[in-house]
Amino acid sequence: MNVFIVHAHAEPKSFNGALTRLAQATLEEAGHDVRVSDLYAMKFDPVSDRRNFTTTKDAAYFKQQVEEQHASKVSGFAPDIEAEMEKLDWCDALIMQFPLWWFSIPAILKGWVDRVLAMGRIYGLGKWYDNGVFKGKRAMLSLTTGGPEPMYSEKGLNGNIHDILFHINHGMLRFVGFDVLEPCIAWSVAHVGDEQRRAYLEAYRRRLLTFWEQEPIRYPSLEDYDENFMLRKP
Amino acid sequence: MNVFIVHAHAEPKSFNGALTRLAQATLEEAGHDVRVSDLYAMKFDPVSDRRNFTTTKDAAYFKQQVEEQHASKVSGFAPDIEAEMEKLDWCDALIMQFPLWWFSIPAILKGWVDRVLAMGRIYGLGKWYDNGVFKGKRAMLSLTTGGPEPMYSEKGLNGNIHDILFHINHGMLRFVGFDVLEPCIAWSVAHVGDEQRRAYLEAYRRRLLTFWEQEPIRYPSLEDYDENFMLRKP
Repeated sequence: MNVFIVHAHAEPKSFNGALTRLAQATLEEAGHDVRVSDLYAMKFDPVSDRRNFTTTKDAAYFKQQVEEQHASKVSGFAPDIEAEMEKLDWCDALIMQFPLWWFSIPAILKGWVDRVLAMGRIYGLGKWYDNGVFKGKRAMLSLTTGGPEPMYSEKGLNGNIHDILFHINHGMLRFVGFDVLEPCIAWSVAHVGDEQRRAYLEAYRRRLLTFWEQEPIRYPSLEDYDENFMLRKP
Repeated sequence: MNVFIVHAHAEPKSFNGALTRLAQATLEEAGHDVRVSDLYAMKFDPVSDRRNFTTTKDAAYFKQQVEEQHASKVSGFAPDIEAEMEKLDWCDALIMQFPLWWFSIPAILKGWVDRVLAMGRIYGLGKWYDNGVFKGKRAMLSLTTGGPEPMYSEKGLNGNIHDILFHINHGMLRFVGFDVLEPCIAWSVAHVGDEQRRAYLEAYRRRLLTFWEQEPIRYPSLEDYDENFMLRKP
């Protein structure tokens, strides 16, 4: 299998760095091919505008989706975006590795989503959710948090982590068709000590070795919605 | 009152641009002072790393919160970050104006949050949520969407908008102490036609004129949580 890891941490010696190195080694040992986009190392530019394109559809008014649809027809994406799109086409599985910042992905990774997941090439015209372009591929978030797990539970101060991650798991990954696995979360990594950090690495290794057998998160199917995109069932 | 608008859209002629121009004019006419950070026009850099600082606490290992705490003590924030912090100190109210991209804020605005809301100066040591640094100030999201309102309801394909915005309203704005107002949302702006767009502008104008009287979103208080940050009440 081909696994694409998008990695977003400024410090190579960070625990996020350790997780991505472990993932690459574990998956390659198991016979898979791995490519890593280390966004900070690549100096990936997260700002989305005309820089996404080598072509221009409307020079007087910038509407990103219009430019994306045009670029999709005429191969008009900027080289940094095209390279990421090709990795997405190549992969059977996508892993996003990041520290949870402000209950979401760091801006450098949000910009990767904003710029790379382009209308036309990656979604649109009925290609979304379980009919998405990446249907049949798998994706998983691997993240670290500042606070401990109970703080991210239903009654915890920060709110339920699954609700918090919904905008990423469902809104970004499922939106473009991925089957989304439960996230792999290393809680409170700065505070737990080396023994727990080793346990997190071992837990991640086990998740990676059973990656293809895990049951994805269950979302309703497009067929469960009516023509106004409202859920039919109660 | 002093109102700080952080604006994130690449196209000045966009509906987001119209909303921010309307907000500035409406608030100034009502006697308020308004400052706008137009992130695209400023070429605001959303990548968070050592560029946030003029000082260095640990040159061998970059941990952002350690550098932030150090910079807070020695006035070590980079000029672009310091300028935004001063606007936050100055304001009585913060408005974020943006198109909903991938069920969150555009990367250029996420980077503003990642870089400007620094530990030490803006949060930490018990300064968070209703005990946050910006306690007593108000904040509101003003956003545009691609899809129509029903798609963002509980049974809609995209999920409930209030759940989607929780990571911003609660995780970013409330986290640093703001009283957060209900968001002002212009649904499906690209598709609704000029009459509805005029109605959106008028609705926003009314929201702005009653900004100081509106009831903020109710979140539990820190006092409702036990020493492990778990909600005491059922």
